[in-house]
Amino acid sequence: MSKKPVKIVTIGGGSSYTPELMEGFIKRYDELPIKEIWLVDIEDGKEKLEIVGKMAQRMWDASPYDVKVHLTLDRREALKDADFVTTQFRVGLLNARIKDERIPFSYGMLGQETNGAGGMFKALRTIPVILSIVEDMKELCPDAWLVNFTNPSGMVTEAVMRFGKWDKVIGLCNVPVGAMLDEPKTIGKTLDQLTYKFAGLNHFHWHKVYDENGKEVTKDIIEAMYEGKDMGIPANIHDIPFFKEQLLQMNMIPCGYHRYYYREEEMLAHGLEEYNDPKVGTRGQQVQQTEHELFELYKNPDLDHKPEQLAKRGGAHYSDAACETIASIYGNKLSHIVVTTKNNGSVPDLPADCAVEVSSYIGSTGARAIAFGSLQPAQRGWLQCMKNMELCVEEAAVTGDYGLLMQAFILNPQTVAGQKMVNVLNELLIAHEKYLPQFADKIAELKASGVTIKDDVARELTEKGL
Amino acid sequence: MSKKPVKIVTIGGGSSYTPELMEGFIKRYDELPIKEIWLVDIEDGKEKLEIVGKMAQRMWDASPYDVKVHLTLDRREALKDADFVTTQFRVGLLNARIKDERIPFSYGMLGQETNGAGGMFKALRTIPVILSIVEDMKELCPDAWLVNFTNPSGMVTEAVMRFGKWDKVIGLCNVPVGAMLDEPKTIGKTLDQLTYKFAGLNHFHWHKVYDENGKEVTKDIIEAMYEGKDMGIPANIHDIPFFKEQLLQMNMIPCGYHRYYYREEEMLAHGLEEYNDPKVGTRGQQVQQTEHELFELYKNPDLDHKPEQLAKRGGAHYSDAACETIASIYGNKLSHIVVTTKNNGSVPDLPADCAVEVSSYIGSTGARAIAFGSLQPAQRGWLQCMKNMELCVEEAAVTGDYGLLMQAFILNPQTVAGQKMVNVLNELLIAHEKYLPQFADKIAELKASGVTIKDDVARELTEKGL
Amino acid sequence: MSKKPVKIVTIGGGSSYTPELMEGFIKRYDELPIKEIWLVDIEDGKEKLEIVGKMAQRMWDASPYDVKVHLTLDRREALKDADFVTTQFRVGLLNARIKDERIPFSYGMLGQETNGAGGMFKALRTIPVILSIVEDMKELCPDAWLVNFTNPSGMVTEAVMRFGKWDKVIGLCNVPVGAMLDEPKTIGKTLDQLTYKFAGLNHFHWHKVYDENGKEVTKDIIEAMYEGKDMGIPANIHDIPFFKEQLLQMNMIPCGYHRYYYREEEMLAHGLEEYNDPKVGTRGQQVQQTEHELFELYKNPDLDHKPEQLAKRGGAHYSDAACETIASIYGNKLSHIVVTTKNNGSVPDLPADCAVEVSSYIGSTGARAIAFGSLQPAQRGWLQCMKNMELCVEEAAVTGDYGLLMQAFILNPQTVAGQKMVNVLNELLIAHEKYLPQFADKIAELKASGVTIKDDVARELTEKGL
Amino acid sequence: MSKKPVKIVTIGGGSSYTPELMEGFIKRYDELPIKEIWLVDIEDGKEKLEIVGKMAQRMWDASPYDVKVHLTLDRREALKDADFVTTQFRVGLLNARIKDERIPFSYGMLGQETNGAGGMFKALRTIPVILSIVEDMKELCPDAWLVNFTNPSGMVTEAVMRFGKWDKVIGLCNVPVGAMLDEPKTIGKTLDQLTYKFAGLNHFHWHKVYDENGKEVTKDIIEAMYEGKDMGIPANIHDIPFFKEQLLQMNMIPCGYHRYYYREEEMLAHGLEEYNDPKVGTRGQQVQQTEHELFELYKNPDLDHKPEQLAKRGGAHYSDAACETIASIYGNKLSHIVVTTKNNGSVPDLPADCAVEVSSYIGSTGARAIAFGSLQPAQRGWLQCMKNMELCVEEAAVTGDYGLLMQAFILNPQTVAGQKMVNVLNELLIAHEKYLPQFADKIAELKASGVTIKDDVARELTEKGL
Repeated sequence: MSKKPVKIVTIGGGSSYTPELMEGFIKRYDELPIKEIWLVDIEDGKEKLEIVGKMAQRMWDASPYDVKVHLTLDRREALKDADFVTTQFRVGLLNARIKDERIPFSYGMLGQETNGAGGMFKALRTIPVILSIVEDMKELCPDAWLVNFTNPSGMVTEAVMRFGKWDKVIGLCNVPVGAMLDEPKTIGKTLDQLTYKFAGLNHFHWHKVYDENGKEVTKDIIEAMYEGKDMGIPANIHDIPFFKEQLLQMNMIPCGYHRYYYREEEMLAHGLEEYNDPKVGTRGQQVQQTEHELFELYKNPDLDHKPEQLAKRGGAHYSDAACETIASIYGNKLSHIVVTTKNNGSVPDLPADCAVEVSSYIGSTGARAIAFGSLQPAQRGWLQCMKNMELCVEEAAVTGDYGLLMQAFILNPQTVAGQKMVNVLNELLIAHEKYLPQFADKIAELKASGVTIKDDVARELTEKGL
Repeated sequence: MSKKPVKIVTIGGGSSYTPELMEGFIKRYDELPIKEIWLVDIEDGKEKLEIVGKMAQRMWDASPYDVKVHLTLDRREALKDADFVTTQFRVGLLNARIKDERIPFSYGMLGQETNGAGGMFKALRTIPVILSIVEDMKELCPDAWLVNFTNPSGMVTEAVMRFGKWDKVIGLCNVPVGAMLDEPKTIGKTLDQLTYKFAGLNHFHWHKVYDENGKEVTKDIIEAMYEGKDMGIPANIHDIPFFKEQLLQMNMIPCGYHRYYYREEEMLAHGLEEYNDPKVGTRGQQVQQTEHELFELYKNPDLDHKPEQLAKRGGAHYSDAACETIASIYGNKLSHIVVTTKNNGSVPDLPADCAVEVSSYIGSTGARAIAFGSLQPAQRGWLQCMKNMELCVEEAAVTGDYGLLMQAFILNPQTVAGQKMVNVLNELLIAHEKYLPQFADKIAELKASGVTIKDDVARELTEKGL
Repeated sequence: MSKKPVKIVTIGGGSSYTPELMEGFIKRYDELPIKEIWLVDIEDGKEKLEIVGKMAQRMWDASPYDVKVHLTLDRREALKDADFVTTQFRVGLLNARIKDERIPFSYGMLGQETNGAGGMFKALRTIPVILSIVEDMKELCPDAWLVNFTNPSGMVTEAVMRFGKWDKVIGLCNVPVGAMLDEPKTIGKTLDQLTYKFAGLNHFHWHKVYDENGKEVTKDIIEAMYEGKDMGIPANIHDIPFFKEQLLQMNMIPCGYHRYYYREEEMLAHGLEEYNDPKVGTRGQQVQQTEHELFELYKNPDLDHKPEQLAKRGGAHYSDAACETIASIYGNKLSHIVVTTKNNGSVPDLPADCAVEVSSYIGSTGARAIAFGSLQPAQRGWLQCMKNMELCVEEAAVTGDYGLLMQAFILNPQTVAGQKMVNVLNELLIAHEKYLPQFADKIAELKASGVTIKDDVARELTEKGL
Repeated sequence: MSKKPVKIVTIGGGSSYTPELMEGFIKRYDELPIKEIWLVDIEDGKEKLEIVGKMAQRMWDASPYDVKVHLTLDRREALKDADFVTTQFRVGLLNARIKDERIPFSYGMLGQETNGAGGMFKALRTIPVILSIVEDMKELCPDAWLVNFTNPSGMVTEAVMRFGKWDKVIGLCNVPVGAMLDEPKTIGKTLDQLTYKFAGLNHFHWHKVYDENGKEVTKDIIEAMYEGKDMGIPANIHDIPFFKEQLLQMNMIPCGYHRYYYREEEMLAHGLEEYNDPKVGTRGQQVQQTEHELFELYKNPDLDHKPEQLAKRGGAHYSDAACETIASIYGNKLSHIVVTTKNNGSVPDLPADCAVEVSSYIGSTGARAIAFGSLQPAQRGWLQCMKNMELCVEEAAVTGDYGLLMQAFILNPQTVAGQKMVNVLNELLIAHEKYLPQFADKIAELKASGVTIKDDVARELTEKGL
C-alpha cells in the first residue's frame, strides 16, 4: 500500500490554533506523509495569517520533514486538488463572539457561543460561508474530505450534508477527548483499558464507560467525580457540579456544556457576574486577550514549537483530534474518535439522515458510527429538543426566515421566550448585519424602526464596523 | 338498536363541576338514557358531596327524567356494574394546588398546575389513586369506559394505559372546545362550516383550520387574532399575545397554555405580580374563593339549574365535553372531539404506544384518532421534549424515584435547572407528604436534613395538615 | 351554506362502468348538485364513448335533473375549471389486460392484474398517463380533487402524490364496500351497528369489526365464514377459503385478494385451469366478453338505467364509492370510506409519507385517515414487502429502469424469481411496447436479441397492434 | 493488563466442527490464554463426544500449550464459572435435518435448513433448548458470554435476547468470512486494503465494499463476478448466478443464501434433482456421509491436527469466526466481524430492539454494530418480510402456537402457501414430535386425524425414533 502524499488546506489558517494543528501533523508524519499545507484566510485576517504562517513554517523547519506551508488569500487557488480541507474560520472574528455574548447578557440571558443565542448566530454567519466553500470543493477537489472544526460544529457539519449535499464531511469536537484523557485515572485505569460509548449532538452528548472485562464503570466514574477527583472540565466552562442524583439516575456522564441546561441558574449567575465586572468580561473578551498574547508570542522568530499558553485557550485537543481524524482516514486506522457524522440510525431517537455526534471508528470511508441504541426519556427529551432547534437554525441560515429564527430562539432552552428575547434577537441581527446578507431586509426594517443595541461594548464594536 | 340504560359513576363527585355534568346529561337524555348516577367522594369531601349531591338531584327532579343520584364514600359499591366512570377528583383539594403554585413562585419560578411544577406534583399525587381505581374497575366493571378529566389529564390518562394496562380510557380537555367556539366568528364562519385538525398533547396542542371548500384558513384566523377579535382564551390563562411572526411561520394555532412556553417571561412576571399581591394571590387561591361562592349558591334549596357563575370557574366545557364523549360512545355518534387517546401513529413524531391529544371521532369503540402527520421541527422539538418529560413524571409517580423526578424538573421548560429548582422540588415533596407515600423515604430524609417550606401560606397549610 | 354546483370530469369516460357512476350521481343529486359532466376518452375509445355517452345522457334525461353530459376527446377542454376529476381509464384496453394475464400463465405463473405481474405492468402503462393528467390539472383546474379508480389504484394514487406532487387525490377500491355489505348479516347485524377498522394497501388490507357496544366481533365473523355463510367475495376472485387457523391467529379479516398470497398454490392451479381451457380463458378474456355484451345493451336507445348485468362485471360498487367520496368532500359528510390516501402515521409500520388504504372519514379537506396502530409481525411482514414492491414499480414507471423493474418482480410474491420470470418480464415489455416509451431502449434490445412472445393469444394481439 | 485465563464451554462438543474450534484456539493461545475447555454433549451424542474429545486433547497435546479438555454429559457441571459458552449443538442430529429437507421436497418445495421450512423447524427444536441453557447460565456463570453458532443463528440468537433476556450473546455466521476471503483478489486487492459494510439478517445480508481511498468498488466486484472470477460461494449453496441487472441496480452484493430467493426457480429445480436421485440425496444426506468419514478419521489415534476434509463440510470458517470473536472480546481487539447482535438502530428499517447481522467491531463490551443506514426499497422489502417471519417463528417456538407457525410458513417466501404447505407443516410436526413438546397437543391431534409422512426416508427415520 503506497498512497500518495497529501495536500492539506486549512481555511481560517490565521487562527491561533494553527500551531497545534502543525504539531499534530508533525507528530503523525510517518503515517500521514504531507506534501504541502495551504493556510487560507481573508483580507481582514491577513496580518494574523502572516504571523501564524511564518510560525507554522518554522515548526516544520525544526522538524525532520520537508513540508512547505503556503499562505494565501485566494481560497480557490488553495483548494485545487486538495486531499483534506480543514475549516477553523471564525466569521467576524472574536469581536463577533463578544457581541454574541454581551447582547444576551445585557438582557439577563445566556449568550453561550455554541448552542445558545451566540451559537445560533454563529451558525447564521458561518453556514453560508461553508456552503460556498463546498461549492468550490465540488469543482476543485471533488474527492477531498472536509474536516470541520468551526463551531457550532454540529450545525455547520449538518448544513454541509443537508444543504451542501456533501457527505465527505466530518465534524470535530474536543470535548470527548478531554473526558477520555481525564476520567480513566479517577478510577485507576488507563484509557486503553476502557471502552467509551458516546452519543448525542455536538456539545450535547452523553457517554457510558466500560472496563477491560466489559463491565460498566460509568457509576464508578460518577462517584469519583463527587469525591473531588479531576474531571477534565473544559477551560471555558465554569466548574459547577451536576446534581449527583441526576447523574446516577441517567447512569451516563453528560458533557461539560450540559451545565448550561442542567445548572442553568448557576451558569447564568456566573456569566452575569463576569459580564458585569469590567475587569473580567465575557469569555470572548477573555479569549481575545489570550489570543493577543499568543500572537505576540508567535511573532518571536525563535519560537518553533507550540507554546504552553495555547493549552489554556479552551479548544485544546481540537486540532489534535483533527490530525488524528485525517491520519485515520488516510491510513484506514479505525481509531475511535467521537465525531459529528450522519446518524444512519446510530441514535434511533433522531431521524436517520440528520447529523449526530457519536463514537465512531474512522477509516478510509470516513466515520463508521457505532449504533448506540435508544436513550432513556429524560435524555431523549433534551436530545430531540436540541436537534429540532438546530434544524430550525440551519434552515433560517439558508433562507433568512425571521419567523423561523424566532422559533429557534423560543425553542432553545438557553433563551427565555418573551419580549427581552426578541430584543436580543433583533439587536444581534443588527450587530452582525455585515455577515447576514440573508436577513438584509429584516435588518433594514429593524433599523428603520429604531432598534439599537443596548450593551455599550457591543454597540461600539458595531459602530466601528468590527 | 335498543341499548340498555346506563349507570354513570363520577369519582370526585363533590366537585363544583358536577352541576355542569348534570346539565350535560340532562341535555342529552334522549340519546343517552341514564338509569342511575353515583357520585363518589372521600371522607374529607363528604360535606361538599352532600351539598352538590342534593343540588344534582334537584336538577334531575326539575327535568322531565326520572334519574336517581346516589351519594357514597364507598367507591367499590358505586363501581359495581358501572357503564361509564368519570374522574374529576383532586387529591389534596385546592389547598394542594395552592401549594403547587406558591412554592415555585417563592423561588421566582412558574408553578403552573397542569404542565409545570404544579402539574408534575399533581400527577405524582393522582396517578397512584387512578391506578387503584383501575384495579377496582378490572374487578367490578370490566367493560366500563373510564372518562378522565382530572388534570394533568394527559399524564393521568397515559398512566392508566401504560401502568394500569387499561385501554378503555379517554382523557378530556376543555381547551379545544373553547377554540372551536370562539374562532369561527372571527372569520365570519360557523363551526359546522369548518374542519379542525388538532394534534399534540394535553394543554400542549396546536391546530389548523379549513373552510367548507377544504381551503386552509389558519392564517386568516391568525390575522384576525391580531385585529383584536376575541380568541377565546381560557379564563385561567393571562392574556398575553403570541408573537405574530411565530404563528405565521408555524401556520398553526397554539393552545392558550403555550403562553407558558412561548411567552415565558411575561407569564412569569404576571404570575409573580399576582403571587406578591396578597389581595389577589395565585390562581388556585382565586379559584378557592370562586368555589366557596359556588358552594354557597349550591346550598340554596331552590336552585335547580347550573348557576351562571360556574362558567367563570376556568374549566368551562370540560363537563360538557365529557357528556358528549359518553353520548358518542354510547350512540356511536362519531362526534369530532379532541381527546387524549393512544397515539397509534396519528402523531408520527411520538412513539405509537404513547398518549396524544388529537382530533378524534368518538364512537362505540372509543376514540378513533385522525392521523395528523409529522409536525415541523419547531413544533416537533417542543412536542418531543414535553412527551418525554411526561413519561419521566409518570414513571416517578409509580416508582417514587427521586432522581427521575429531578430529571423531569430539569427537562420541564417551566422550571429553571439549578439549586432553586431543587429547593422547589424538595419543599413540594414535604408539602404533599400526605399524598406521596411512594416518596416517603426521601421526604423523611429531607425533613431530617432540615428542609422547610419558605412560602408562608404553603407552610402554614402544611403545618395544619391541609 | 350554498356551494356552487359542480363540474365533473371523467377520464376514461367510455368505460362500461360509466352508467354505474351516473346512477350514483343521480341518486345523490340533492346533496351533490351537478352542473355538467364531461366524459373524456381517446381516439381508440371513440366508439365506446359515443355509445356509453348517449346512454349516460338518457339516464339523466330519465331523472328529474337537468344535467348535460359532454363527450370529448380533448382532455384539456374538459379539465378547464373542473371541480372533480375521476379517472377510470385503462391504457391498452382489455387486450392489454389479457396479455398481462396470459404471458405469466404461459410460464406457469400468476399474472394477477392488480398486484401481480399484470398489475405491475398496468402501473407501468398508467403512471405516465396519470402524471400527464396531473400536469394538465395544475394548469387548468388547480383546486380540483382527483378521484382515482384506475387500477392498480394504490400505486397509481401513490405515484400522483410522490411524483406528481399533487395531494388532492383519493384512490378508491370497491373491495371494502363488498365486505361491509355482506359480513354484517352473517352475525345477525346491520352495517350501521358495526364499526369497521381497515388498514393496509389497495387490494391488500385487513379489517377488524366491532359491535354497537364496542365489543370486537371479528372472531364471530370468521367463525361464520366457516359455517358457510356468504362472505361477499368479489366476482373476480376464485372462492378458495383461507386457512381458518391463520385467520383466528391474526384475528383480522383479510381481503379477497389475499388469496393470491395466502392460498397461492390453489389460486395458481385455478388460474392455469381457466387459462388452459380455450372455452374459458383468463379473467380478462371473460370480462371482455361481458363488456361486449354490456355495450350491446348500452346501444339500445330505450335503455335509460343501469342494467343488472353490470353488477357481474367485477368492479361493482367502485363507482358508487366514487360518488359517495365526491358527495362527502362536497358536503363535508364525513362518511366512513376505505380509501387510498397519505399514510401520515395511520399505519405506523410504513413511512409516514407513503400511501395506504385505510378507514377514513371523508370531508371538505379530503380523507381523514384513522390511526390504526401497528400490525402484528405476520401481517407487518406482508405489508412492508408489498409496499416496497410498489415503491419499486412506481419508480421504474417513471425512470424506465429495467434493473429496478426486475427487482420488483423478484420481490413480488406472486412471481417466482428465476429465468422464467425474466422471460415473463421481457415478453410483457415487448407486448406493451406501444405504451411503455420509458423502456424503449430496453425493448429494442430485447427484440434485437430475438425475444418473442410464447403465448399465442398474446403474441397475435401484439402482432395486430392491439 | 493481566486478565485471568479463561474457561471455555462448548455445548454440542461432540460435533465434527470441534477440531476446527481447537485449531482456532491453539492458533490464538498467546492472545487468549485458555485454562480449560469443557465439551458438553447429550447421551445420544456420547460416542461422538468421546471420539472428538480425544482428538481435541491430542491436538492440544501436540501444541506447546498445557490445556485440559474435559468431556461431560453434565451441562451444569461444565457451565460453572465459565467465561465463554459456545453453542454448536444440533437437536435431533443430522437425521432431523434430513427430515427438514426431504418432507418439503416431497411436496415440490424447498426445505432449506436455515431460513426455509427446515430452518423454521430447526428453530422450533433449538430455541427451547438454548433458553434452558441461558437459565443455567444465569445461575452458574452470570458474567459469561454466549457465542452461538447453532443455526438458524439469527433466530436462535434473537430468541436468547428476546425471551431469555440475555444480552451477552453474539451469533456467528461463516458466510461473510468467505466473501471477505474470496472477493478482494477478484479486483486485485487484499482484504486489509478494503472496507466491508455488511447489513441484514443471518444468511440474508448484503454488503458494499470500498477501497483504501474510500472509493466504492462494489460494482467492480460485481463485474468481476460475471467475468468468471471465483466468488467464494459456500460449499452448501448450488452455484447459480444472480441476475446481473439486479446486482447492478442494488449496487450491493447479496449473500449466497439469497439464491433461494433471487433464483428460487433454479434452486428448487436443483434441489429436487438431488432429492430425486437416490445416489445423491439432499444436502443433509451428503453431509451425513461426510460426517461419517470425518469421525472415522478422528478415531485415528495418530491424528492430532484438523484434517483437510473438514473444510468441505460447509460450515468452514464458522469455528474460526467463533475463536476470533472470543479473542476479540477477551483482548478488546476490535476486530471487524459480521455478527448477529442487537440492532440498536444500525439498520433503521427494522425495530431498534431486534437482532440483525451487521459489520461490528468486537471488543470487551461485545459487538459494537456499525450504523449502516436505511436500505433501498427492493432490499428493504425482503429484509422486513424476513425479519417478521423470524419473529413469528421464535414466538411460535416458545408458545407452541400452531396458527402462528402457519403464518410464518405462509409469510416465508420459500414455502408456497396452500394445502401442500400445510401438509409439509403437519408432517414436519409429526416427524419431530420428540423435540417439540410445545406442540404436543397439536401433534396428537394430527396423528389422530391420520396424518402420515409421505417421504419414505423421513417416515422410516421417524418410525425408528431417529
